[in-house]
Amino acid sequence: PPGIVHLVGAGPGAGDLLTLRALRLLGEADVIVHDRLGTEEVLELARRDAERIFVGKARANHCMKQEEINALLVRLARAGKRVVRLKGGDPLVFGRGGEEAEALAAAGIPCEVVPGVTAALACAAGAGIPLTHRDAARAVTFVTGHRRDGSVDVSGLVRPGQTLAIYMGLTMLREIRDGLVAQGLSPATPAAVVERGGTARQRVLRGTLETIAAEAPAWVQGGPALLLVGEAVGRGSAGWAQPALAA
Amino acid sequence: PPGIVHLVGAGPGAGDLLTLRALRLLGEADVIVHDRLGTEEVLELARRDAERIFVGKARANHCMKQEEINALLVRLARAGKRVVRLKGGDPLVFGRGGEEAEALAAAGIPCEVVPGVTAALACAAGAGIPLTHRDAARAVTFVTGHRRDGSVDVSGLVRPGQTLAIYMGLTMLREIRDGLVAQGLSPATPAAVVERGGTARQRVLRGTLETIAAEAPAWVQGGPALLLVGEAVGRGSAGWAQPALAA
Repeated sequence: PPGIVHLVGAGPGAGDLLTLRALRLLGEADVIVHDRLGTEEVLELARRDAERIFVGKARANHCMKQEEINALLVRLARAGKRVVRLKGGDPLVFGRGGEEAEALAAAGIPCEVVPGVTAALACAAGAGIPLTHRDAARAVTFVTGHRRDGSVDVSGLVRPGQTLAIYMGLTMLREIRDGLVAQGLSPATPAAVVERGGTARQRVLRGTLETIAAEAPAWVQGGPALLLVGEAVGRGSAGWAQPALAA
Repeated sequence: PPGIVHLVGAGPGAGDLLTLRALRLLGEADVIVHDRLGTEEVLELARRDAERIFVGKARANHCMKQEEINALLVRLARAGKRVVRLKGGDPLVFGRGGEEAEALAAAGIPCEVVPGVTAALACAAGAGIPLTHRDAARAVTFVTGHRRDGSVDVSGLVRPGQTLAIYMGLTMLREIRDGLVAQGLSPATPAAVVERGGTARQRVLRGTLETIAAEAPAWVQGGPALLLVGEAVGRGSAGWAQPALAA
């Protein structure tokens, strides 16, 4: 029988933020091709005898090139395997899932995408920060903090009533602040950094664009971190933290 | 013992796109306060003898005012109940969850937010449309298609390499097209409308901003619909449709 590839969002890393559909597919998979070290808790929920292939994509450091991952998925499916391609967060938000799906479609391999809780949603819920708010934000933009060439492009991102959720932005934090301020955003705009958002090891640093840019580099402990900026971020409250995390 | 309110994202309506955490809380709730008719499948998964209170928020038509919902949640928690406030999608993206959390915090009621798969993620996965793409979109903006006063504000939304996911935009579709084109977006920009995205009743209309604006009003069948606009939308493929939906 022909194989199939499921591009599955693992969510932020907490096992219980996985969807029921993803859990079922992990229980049926012959092979699981996974990225990051952040998905251990989710991998625990997979079929015990499924083969696991770590392709080592953790932010900019790829153990395997994207083209090699695409070719691996095609090869496994052609061998008749039920493949789960497990991706942190959601497969179609900064996960390069679109490219994998394109490669599979080009090779005639059936492909199903299962959405997941992307980092911005998990960080917002975990830290008690509304992404939209009737009085403060009518839009939210998810953007990456770095480009292919390593530069930062924040042009056009300053818009009244909009929250920014900047993925993988910490290494470029000062350039991001400078770019946003140059476009007219106040350095006093509320901001937060959420590290390992939505997991039991979540940490939150709250402040303004200015204080976060100054403090976050020394504060961060190396986990995946998301930068949130905007008036709505100031509406947040540690009081809504998840009891499990507050404990 | 004091009560607690869990603001829980129900996801797009398909029962199996609920998270495991949400499922557990639905199984433990004394009372479930829910919004939309789109959450029936999720409500099936709740504790059988939990009280259910429908507060009837379906887009602009509220059966109960927001202030009344806030007061209800406070009252139930003060009576010692474990309350699940079930919201379509994610509680902090266009769900007014931030306001409910603020009201609970002001009343000293413990509150936990559980993120969910918001409509844009479910629609993208279900229709096979990448929200970001290394070659075509480095940002995605979620925005509402209508304002409190019924007008449309699309100013500042035209930015190269950005996908727009416009929630509740169908009634203002022509105004949205006009606004985007007036800001310089080509009418030939790829676009799609996804109705009941991520559920078994999903329908997808693909085209350009121009053709979608012309065709969608007659095409839509009244379910919740999301408008996607941007170059990345053209990278999508019906070939990635979920087998369960394609069948």
